[in-house]
Amino acid sequence: MTAPTRLVRPGIRVCLAPPLLRPENLEQFTVVVIDVLRATTSMCVAFGHGLEHLVTVASIEACAAYRSQGYLVAAERDGLPIAGFDFGNSPYSFMRPLQGQRLALTTTNGTQALEAARAARSIVIGAFANFSVLIDHLRAQGGPILLLCSGWKNAPNLEDSLLAGAICHALEPQLPLADDAAAISLALYRHATLRFREFLRRSSHFQRLIDLGLQKDVKYCLRQNTQPVLPVLQNGVLVNALVKR
Amino acid sequence: MTAPTRLVRPGIRVCLAPPLLRPENLEQFTVVVIDVLRATTSMCVAFGHGLEHLVTVASIEACAAYRSQGYLVAAERDGLPIAGFDFGNSPYSFMRPLQGQRLALTTTNGTQALEAARAARSIVIGAFANFSVLIDHLRAQGGPILLLCSGWKNAPNLEDSLLAGAICHALEPQLPLADDAAAISLALYRHATLRFREFLRRSSHFQRLIDLGLQKDVKYCLRQNTQPVLPVLQNGVLVNALVKR
Repeated sequence: MTAPTRLVRPGIRVCLAPPLLRPENLEQFTVVVIDVLRATTSMCVAFGHGLEHLVTVASIEACAAYRSQGYLVAAERDGLPIAGFDFGNSPYSFMRPLQGQRLALTTTNGTQALEAARAARSIVIGAFANFSVLIDHLRAQGGPILLLCSGWKNAPNLEDSLLAGAICHALEPQLPLADDAAAISLALYRHATLRFREFLRRSSHFQRLIDLGLQKDVKYCLRQNTQPVLPVLQNGVLVNALVKR
Repeated sequence: MTAPTRLVRPGIRVCLAPPLLRPENLEQFTVVVIDVLRATTSMCVAFGHGLEHLVTVASIEACAAYRSQGYLVAAERDGLPIAGFDFGNSPYSFMRPLQGQRLALTTTNGTQALEAARAARSIVIGAFANFSVLIDHLRAQGGPILLLCSGWKNAPNLEDSLLAGAICHALEPQLPLADDAAAISLALYRHATLRFREFLRRSSHFQRLIDLGLQKDVKYCLRQNTQPVLPVLQNGVLVNALVKR
């Protein structure tokens, strides 16, 4: 005899980093995977340029193997692109016509978070880039929502927590905050909005990317609503739900 | 051949919940264990009333067994005291003469966090109750500091994150914030100070204790500097470092 399923009450929960993800009842949640710098932003850019579908893979080797199936391949580790791949993880590298193309992607944190959430009722990609489209979708969904921050190497980071807070802020009038991490994110967002970019300078990954000369990327990743797309997981691959098939 | 030890740069790091604790280099850190509602607050109260030493144990059974060695015993689970023990986890229950007494304690979250930090260079107990004494001690220590929030059942909670933020705020002029979780806590604290108790109403554990009729406990746990004590781990037991031996 299996235990009866406990219905999770609706509302917004936040997971500030993947080690905090608890698998119980995940199948009841709409999970938003967040990796602002830069995986989920770059995904939005790719879909905004017509990408047909995207698979995320954990290892560099598995990613490279997709090339033989006609995929474009993208790989990043510790902020740097990997030699021999078509793309790294810069949003700018995906600003080219991608109609009809398929892409395999592996990144330091974002793809791992996506993997951890596989059991969810539905999985959506979140970034500042597709903020308004995402909010409209979450409002329409209702039900329990989990914002899953990819963080940096299993620790929370500022930029993902901040986007989580911005989403809580936008949804809170309709949906209650359902855990303390949501309240923490919201406070962070409200505190930060007064001086957004100055605030983000405290982010360790922000600093890491600046040190790598990627200031332009960072700036782009913090801009809202540059890509009106809604990447969702369907049959194991990410597609833009706003494109009619 | 063992790998050379990498020296951790000084500064303040925050672990928002035990699953985020990474064991690497823990032996270089002064770890502050935080469980505002109510374990570390109650520990401060007990030492403020003359307690000689305190052992924390993981299980209720192991805790009960200490009675035969002449210990007082205290146990709490999910906010409620356990029948047959001398104390639960209410700070008020420890407000009685405890000179020369030894105490064994098990609680839902706080004692587990302490266990997880055993490998640290030194372990200190932190609460709003001993705030100023704690800050003076941390300032004198220098070196890498890790604020370990016990959270609630492996998730972050508001009140522990808030105390972490208050500590970051007090130390920041001298010590840099060394990870994003420290910046998140500090933002939370700065946002919250404007309307402290109203803000804490969002805390799930706050609400849980209020529902259990423990409003008085909660109020006490948020008061600063009620107990000028410095509980530290020495030879496997907690003692008040301010008492000359």
